[in-house]
Amino acid sequence: MSSKSIKVFAPASVSNVGPGFDMMGFALHTPGDEVTVKLTDRKEIRIVKISGDNGYLPYEIEKNTTTGAMLSLLKKYRINAGMDVFIHKKMGIGSGLGSSAASAVAGVFALNELLELRLSRYELLEHALKGEFIASRSIHADNVAPCLYGGFVLIRSYNPIDIIKIDYPDDLYCSIVYPNIEIKTSEARKLISKNVSMKKAIAQAGNASALIAGLITADYDLIGRSIVDYFAEPKRAALIPCYDDVRNAALEKGAINCNITGSGPSMFAFSRTESDARSIARAMLKAVKSAGFDGKTYVSKINKKGPVVLK
Amino acid sequence: MSSKSIKVFAPASVSNVGPGFDMMGFALHTPGDEVTVKLTDRKEIRIVKISGDNGYLPYEIEKNTTTGAMLSLLKKYRINAGMDVFIHKKMGIGSGLGSSAASAVAGVFALNELLELRLSRYELLEHALKGEFIASRSIHADNVAPCLYGGFVLIRSYNPIDIIKIDYPDDLYCSIVYPNIEIKTSEARKLISKNVSMKKAIAQAGNASALIAGLITADYDLIGRSIVDYFAEPKRAALIPCYDDVRNAALEKGAINCNITGSGPSMFAFSRTESDARSIARAMLKAVKSAGFDGKTYVSKINKKGPVVLK
Repeated sequence: MSSKSIKVFAPASVSNVGPGFDMMGFALHTPGDEVTVKLTDRKEIRIVKISGDNGYLPYEIEKNTTTGAMLSLLKKYRINAGMDVFIHKKMGIGSGLGSSAASAVAGVFALNELLELRLSRYELLEHALKGEFIASRSIHADNVAPCLYGGFVLIRSYNPIDIIKIDYPDDLYCSIVYPNIEIKTSEARKLISKNVSMKKAIAQAGNASALIAGLITADYDLIGRSIVDYFAEPKRAALIPCYDDVRNAALEKGAINCNITGSGPSMFAFSRTESDARSIARAMLKAVKSAGFDGKTYVSKINKKGPVVLK
Repeated sequence: MSSKSIKVFAPASVSNVGPGFDMMGFALHTPGDEVTVKLTDRKEIRIVKISGDNGYLPYEIEKNTTTGAMLSLLKKYRINAGMDVFIHKKMGIGSGLGSSAASAVAGVFALNELLELRLSRYELLEHALKGEFIASRSIHADNVAPCLYGGFVLIRSYNPIDIIKIDYPDDLYCSIVYPNIEIKTSEARKLISKNVSMKKAIAQAGNASALIAGLITADYDLIGRSIVDYFAEPKRAALIPCYDDVRNAALEKGAINCNITGSGPSMFAFSRTESDARSIARAMLKAVKSAGFDGKTYVSKINKKGPVVLK
């Protein structure tokens, strides 16, 4: 074994991306989670410390997304090993930025590197999804897959799972505002109808297809007009009291478009330069504050790499 | 005016293309329709002759798709002109290959050239759709747009209408079999549910997006596994008694994939060489005949040009 200890960063991710409900997402450079795994002589996994979570996350290894994902992998490959796990949350839980996905991905990625398992990302995916399931009680890969694979991903199919990496223009910046509003993923999911009109389903597929075309061909105008969501946004925007204000603020500053990430409350906006992205983020935060909430902002390009080992 | 008479060919088209129900289609080189328009001194439009239609199409100019589309255009631009129109159908009516769309497109394209109107394809589209509406009683652009624009098109949105031309690999061949089974578009439309489960809607959008990615990046394997339709094919395949046999025959001969075009009964299959496309078409026809039907085949690349003036 190359080392007795490893520290991994796994990134936050924007999911849904407008028309890509439950099937598109992309990784960010910031924020993200750090997970450290140390081999020990005891034949058990334990969580030594969780920080940055305000006491929210469980230490029971089956109930924690990081160790839950790790246990799934260890069981499948019949690996017995003792490990101490340290989880440092550097992003909000329930932010809509794939917090639980990042924690799960960091765990399985760390194991793969530490034990030199040489598993592919596709082989790791199954276990990261099991970790994510612990938090969200549903299998959706639109945070786990971009976090694990990096870049912009399309989930073509869930059965079998089929992850497609999508090219995108290099000068595409993402501004994020995370308003201090609590939205539970499980509650936000309940708002989603079990059925949808054929008309909306066709319109959603049209915009999703067009967004993919816009990304691959670097057609910013097409990217902008394709970021329309008929499935989730009309219902979930109501959970974010400042939604319209934030969106309008982003568009006024020249954003390509702006929408909810995941089940919210965070919102993302695309632009073409870092300075635009910073001014858009500031305007979004200002709108959040004007509505009486506090919030945080992030500015990031799409993160091509996904998780990385930290020195 | 450059000439007193013009003859135009407008191509057949494959619509739906698996997951692109009502929002994707591509033009073929063959079959197609020919429309001749001659300026006359009488200030009226009349249809002089319709051939190749087995007496099926109406001579009343408001009820005919070709002249209906022409009248819409002439009215909008307040043009008074006398014209004799000759319509030569070179493809089956109700074939699922965009027969009425080709007739409508040929009419407006001929007018634009003959009267040197210099209208854009986008400006022509509105009127071709009105012609198509006469035949189908519904506004769907997935035959009219590929026929008029050529190439592979995605209809991102119907309101406002937004046509996106999609790149595709040059060595993509299409085999078509048109079994001699009557399916009325209006009947086939009635089979389509007004609502669909969110799960299917997400899966459809995933496959549609992936098909677009596969086309643009020339990923034949991705094109193949994305040609899955949850909206129309499960219901419409039942109208084509030989559907499974034809599809299996195409796949056995190495087709990338095979599905219904439009509301059927024609079926299309993709492959990578002309000789494969020909052997696939033969196998498809054999399966049609084994099931007790007669049929025709066509082999074509995607037609980049759309309608053309014939000498």
